[in-house]
Amino acid sequence: MHFEWKGVFPALTTQFTPEDELDIPLFEKNLAFQLEAGVDGVILGGSLGEASVLTTPEKEILVKTALQKTAGQVPVLINIAEGSTREAVQQAALAAKWGAHGLMLLPPMRYKSDHRETVAYLKTVAQSTDLPIIVYNNPVDYKIEITLDIFEELAECQNIGAVKESTRDVSNVTRMINRFGNRFKILCGVDPLAMEELVMGADGWVAGLVDAFPRETVAIYRLVKAGQLEEAAAIYRWFMPLLDLDIHPKLVQYIKLASTQAGIGSEYVRAPRLRLIGEERERILEIINEGIRTRPVLPDYLNLTLVNNYL
Amino acid sequence: MHFEWKGVFPALTTQFTPEDELDIPLFEKNLAFQLEAGVDGVILGGSLGEASVLTTPEKEILVKTALQKTAGQVPVLINIAEGSTREAVQQAALAAKWGAHGLMLLPPMRYKSDHRETVAYLKTVAQSTDLPIIVYNNPVDYKIEITLDIFEELAECQNIGAVKESTRDVSNVTRMINRFGNRFKILCGVDPLAMEELVMGADGWVAGLVDAFPRETVAIYRLVKAGQLEEAAAIYRWFMPLLDLDIHPKLVQYIKLASTQAGIGSEYVRAPRLRLIGEERERILEIINEGIRTRPVLPDYLNLTLVNNYL
Amino acid sequence: MHFEWKGVFPALTTQFTPEDELDIPLFEKNLAFQLEAGVDGVILGGSLGEASVLTTPEKEILVKTALQKTAGQVPVLINIAEGSTREAVQQAALAAKWGAHGLMLLPPMRYKSDHRETVAYLKTVAQSTDLPIIVYNNPVDYKIEITLDIFEELAECQNIGAVKESTRDVSNVTRMINRFGNRFKILCGVDPLAMEELVMGADGWVAGLVDAFPRETVAIYRLVKAGQLEEAAAIYRWFMPLLDLDIHPKLVQYIKLASTQAGIGSEYVRAPRLRLIGEERERILEIINEGIRTRPVLPDYLNLTLVNNYL
Amino acid sequence: MHFEWKGVFPALTTQFTPEDELDIPLFEKNLAFQLEAGVDGVILGGSLGEASVLTTPEKEILVKTALQKTAGQVPVLINIAEGSTREAVQQAALAAKWGAHGLMLLPPMRYKSDHRETVAYLKTVAQSTDLPIIVYNNPVDYKIEITLDIFEELAECQNIGAVKESTRDVSNVTRMINRFGNRFKILCGVDPLAMEELVMGADGWVAGLVDAFPRETVAIYRLVKAGQLEEAAAIYRWFMPLLDLDIHPKLVQYIKLASTQAGIGSEYVRAPRLRLIGEERERILEIINEGIRTRPVLPDYLNLTLVNNYL
Repeated sequence: MHFEWKGVFPALTTQFTPEDELDIPLFEKNLAFQLEAGVDGVILGGSLGEASVLTTPEKEILVKTALQKTAGQVPVLINIAEGSTREAVQQAALAAKWGAHGLMLLPPMRYKSDHRETVAYLKTVAQSTDLPIIVYNNPVDYKIEITLDIFEELAECQNIGAVKESTRDVSNVTRMINRFGNRFKILCGVDPLAMEELVMGADGWVAGLVDAFPRETVAIYRLVKAGQLEEAAAIYRWFMPLLDLDIHPKLVQYIKLASTQAGIGSEYVRAPRLRLIGEERERILEIINEGIRTRPVLPDYLNLTLVNNYL
Repeated sequence: MHFEWKGVFPALTTQFTPEDELDIPLFEKNLAFQLEAGVDGVILGGSLGEASVLTTPEKEILVKTALQKTAGQVPVLINIAEGSTREAVQQAALAAKWGAHGLMLLPPMRYKSDHRETVAYLKTVAQSTDLPIIVYNNPVDYKIEITLDIFEELAECQNIGAVKESTRDVSNVTRMINRFGNRFKILCGVDPLAMEELVMGADGWVAGLVDAFPRETVAIYRLVKAGQLEEAAAIYRWFMPLLDLDIHPKLVQYIKLASTQAGIGSEYVRAPRLRLIGEERERILEIINEGIRTRPVLPDYLNLTLVNNYL
Repeated sequence: MHFEWKGVFPALTTQFTPEDELDIPLFEKNLAFQLEAGVDGVILGGSLGEASVLTTPEKEILVKTALQKTAGQVPVLINIAEGSTREAVQQAALAAKWGAHGLMLLPPMRYKSDHRETVAYLKTVAQSTDLPIIVYNNPVDYKIEITLDIFEELAECQNIGAVKESTRDVSNVTRMINRFGNRFKILCGVDPLAMEELVMGADGWVAGLVDAFPRETVAIYRLVKAGQLEEAAAIYRWFMPLLDLDIHPKLVQYIKLASTQAGIGSEYVRAPRLRLIGEERERILEIINEGIRTRPVLPDYLNLTLVNNYL
Repeated sequence: MHFEWKGVFPALTTQFTPEDELDIPLFEKNLAFQLEAGVDGVILGGSLGEASVLTTPEKEILVKTALQKTAGQVPVLINIAEGSTREAVQQAALAAKWGAHGLMLLPPMRYKSDHRETVAYLKTVAQSTDLPIIVYNNPVDYKIEITLDIFEELAECQNIGAVKESTRDVSNVTRMINRFGNRFKILCGVDPLAMEELVMGADGWVAGLVDAFPRETVAIYRLVKAGQLEEAAAIYRWFMPLLDLDIHPKLVQYIKLASTQAGIGSEYVRAPRLRLIGEERERILEIINEGIRTRPVLPDYLNLTLVNNYL
């Protein structure tokens, strides 16, 4: 399947039953809402998908379910986040075997590799597969920064086509464009920075709150790309208290609670994560419910003419 | 003098002679270029003005010189950055006596005051003067964040009208607008984040590289506010390697070197700062000279119609 | 096997062949040197053992080999560092099945659990097993701090008997003793802080450079506990440039290089780690070789009378 | 006056009246208690002395008062913490004129000077005076680290004889001794690390809680240097909750509250600092009062034979 690194790619949550098994019907329900809202691809097993607690057989089920339900409308990607190079290569091979259309790829887990080791890791995985790859640049949560100089070396891997930009430094969008032009597509990976980065030339948005509010997320993306900044900003401002939930260590629990309130998810998480309780749950619920109460009416964002980035 | 917290306010450098005295003719030359380029106000004795090494008599000379040369075209502000509340109040009184039109005000120097102490400090200074005040929110360099809750308490000081937003968190612009609407004007204080913040509703830009490149800085501001984002982005991208000089501990030396190359400044700094030497000077010169070599032709930015922010 | 949380416990490296398989003969050789030097236990699959790249079958081989070679002289422990609670419980059960005498236990990997979640994770694993446990408190490298308040809740798990103290805050030794007396034994987990912590009452040392210099490490521990501080300090000062290698992201490569120079290890590491090259390898080699060149003559540290800590 | 960089040097607080003027009688009372307890020198105008809010005339009064009351029993030092090199040189000259016996010297305030600039600053001040100098190495609170390589360059200034070691990295004591032997005396500058550093060879302690508990502070120092570690540790453990007050941004208020409870100080601070209120005051009072309630009986520490450090 050919696809472009462009538009809104939800980092989907993994739905669990009260018995801590995969809740496939609920996963499918959420997915249907995403598709209807106009997303451009889906990513499984990311941080929001509780990557660190999923087994390989569970990942296989998730990929195959997503492939069946999306039926070729949008690409299905899976995240590779492993401690050993060998295991990462193996997971990439499995993803291809299961039929995934692409990979998101983090630098090594648990070891702070240096420049040379990070390049070697990313290139080894990329060269082992034909799948298109978006590398995930998140030095805040995962310690390793994929620097501009590392990207220079990655440029020879044709299947590395994009970056999930989560350095939290918005000017990195401009620095990437200045250095590499169009070579690497840039998808913003931090919800509360998305509009700023889209305006500056980012091509898309690997989104989080989209799991609860898919239409609003896609609307912002499309309005920005149609040049309707004022309309986009109005939604973005309304959205900000919710988007801020994306940059907290408990983003999974917060966004699952938001999805639950929005009727398209449940609160169940897998240990070591625990469900929210007490004051924290009340505080987050208040933010969510206020957001739902003041939800804006959206324009007909699905039929806008999107313009190219000013490159 | 009535003025609005809006537009480009250069944080001017202080020019020194080889004998370490104020170089007033060079200061005036730079100022003339700023005015010609269309700046909306000037700020003396900021971080870029080497606040921490200026004497009170020198500040007086700088204020009076600027007042004379600007002749009412734009407001002249001076920065208050003191360790003791008493001294800050006294400096504010002196500024008024010298004729300054407004103040920039930092939280206490050298002591990490808590919420209550920060509020008390800022309010004590504000209540001691009639001058309009822009508070300077820079927790990265000065440790103390002026949080939204602190702004809540500052709102009763009518003369605190604006913030120099230097948290480096661009979504703080949206959070400020969501919480306070139009109450506090927002001037971006970090050069490489300026366009993003202006697009999101910031009212102005307390700028650094403007000291060397005043026309380009004002052009970006005005093009964004005229809705010509593509033109603005083209200049901003060209400008980025230079703007990045603004977020380094040696920003004074770097920006003074840029001003020197641009023909409107000198490299002299006052100890403990030393002039750049060796490899570092070569590296920065290369960035500056490449910028000058590829300097874009600017549109007629002085005659644009600026629109209001979408609030 | 009954044992005390006391003395020197090497965090052993995992030896690999050039073909990236376990090098059991070399592992055994190193182990023999440790035993001869007088260590009090060994820990497998720690950070230094490249935990994040070992497979479960490899861990089984390592445990069983160590059990056979130590033949009951000292306890054999294995590290549990997992992302999911379920997997951690399973690894603990396997360790018991293989015959390990105890566990080192890290908080969850890859998720920054909060107080309640960290307690739940550690208690769930502890309550699932009869093996004695040393929890590993390393907020610097693994983000989660096991605070005094968490230890308060862990106290009811009788098999949690000790902490590997790696907060890098030496006064935490005193705070732990003030709060819990003798309840949790304290083993210093940061080589260049070991003597300070032993003097202040730590019971032992989970050591790193011991992999290359077992006799010197054990000598420092025993001399301190025999009250011969001057002799201990002389060795410790000599040792410091080497001990500093323990607090670098590349500690595995550095310590393996030291073991190689000491004749009891090899440089092979498993990807994503790569062997040292170029300037970095030269620089580290120089430190190591200087250490070997100036190696002090040790007193007869094996026959000292150790006194109790002053509690 | 000749003196050695050795022993306990209190960083004295500055006592204020309710009218915010110097409270000289109370200052003298505290000083008398320090002398009686056996301190080896006193330091005025340090962080604890609220350096950043004192005027030059006030510093003169403090120095002259201390000189008169100490009457040559111990040296009187004053802290130099300035933003400009010129001002630092001038303050050093004033200190000499007032009769001070030595200086404590911080790197530049408010500017993060690099290696070359830090060396130039410290050497310029040192070369301008005949007074003995202790440089203050506190990168945590003041951003600039005086690295080993900087000390290498400072070694040629014969009057720089000591360092107040506040890097919070206790192994820096060993690194300094390994590199410079006896050249720079080391005085621990962080209360809760003092015993560890004294054991490892530090020559003294620039202390904070000494302002409230002078006898206990001097007792720990002398017991350690007399080789009576067990007795020293018992006091140190009792002291730890109080010593921890020294590493908080509000150390001035906390230690002044402790001095007040101990009957040798008052709570008055100068703005921007405010007196403690509410829950925070209660919490700190509880720590202080518990300390006073359980105060240990001290051995006859004033007549111990101190031994040299093991160098």
